[in-house]
Amino acid sequence: MKAIVNVFLKPGVLDSQGKAVHHALSSLHFDNVKDVRVGKQIVLQLDENDAQKAQEDVETMCEELLANTVIEDYTVEIVQ
Amino acid sequence: MKAIVNVFLKPGVLDSQGKAVHHALSSLHFDNVKDVRVGKQIVLQLDENDAQKAQEDVETMCEELLANTVIEDYTVEIVQ
Repeated sequence: MKAIVNVFLKPGVLDSQGKAVHHALSSLHFDNVKDVRVGKQIVLQLDENDAQKAQEDVETMCEELLANTVIEDYTVEIVQ
Repeated sequence: MKAIVNVFLKPGVLDSQGKAVHHALSSLHFDNVKDVRVGKQIVLQLDENDAQKAQEDVETMCEELLANTVIEDYTVEIVQ
């Protein structure tokens, strides 16, 4: 079973990496970009057959390690 | 229009960040994790109404800036 975790800075938190990418795209004359946010995508291969259990496990991993919940939000998607 | 770009190291390229996360999860007694890969997710807000044009623009951005195509693969998804 595979879990896809997306970790993003919360809205309102300054995303300096996103700003840098936006600036670089403008320098390359991509003028139709209004905003850029950069986050992490973590793909976990799990030795687990129960999707509900996998979801709970991965949410615990996010709380304990994968996301800094003070400034970051995360989503968890379980894929077969 | 929104574009979601996922950038991942190609299969076979050592993902040291993924290995570090895997090791850290093992230390926290998450023993059902078999493999971890860490990539980037870049969300672009585009001032563009044509999905086909947006897809082409973002693929060009990936080739020129967002991905290092020697060692990384990318996917582009256009969302309304």
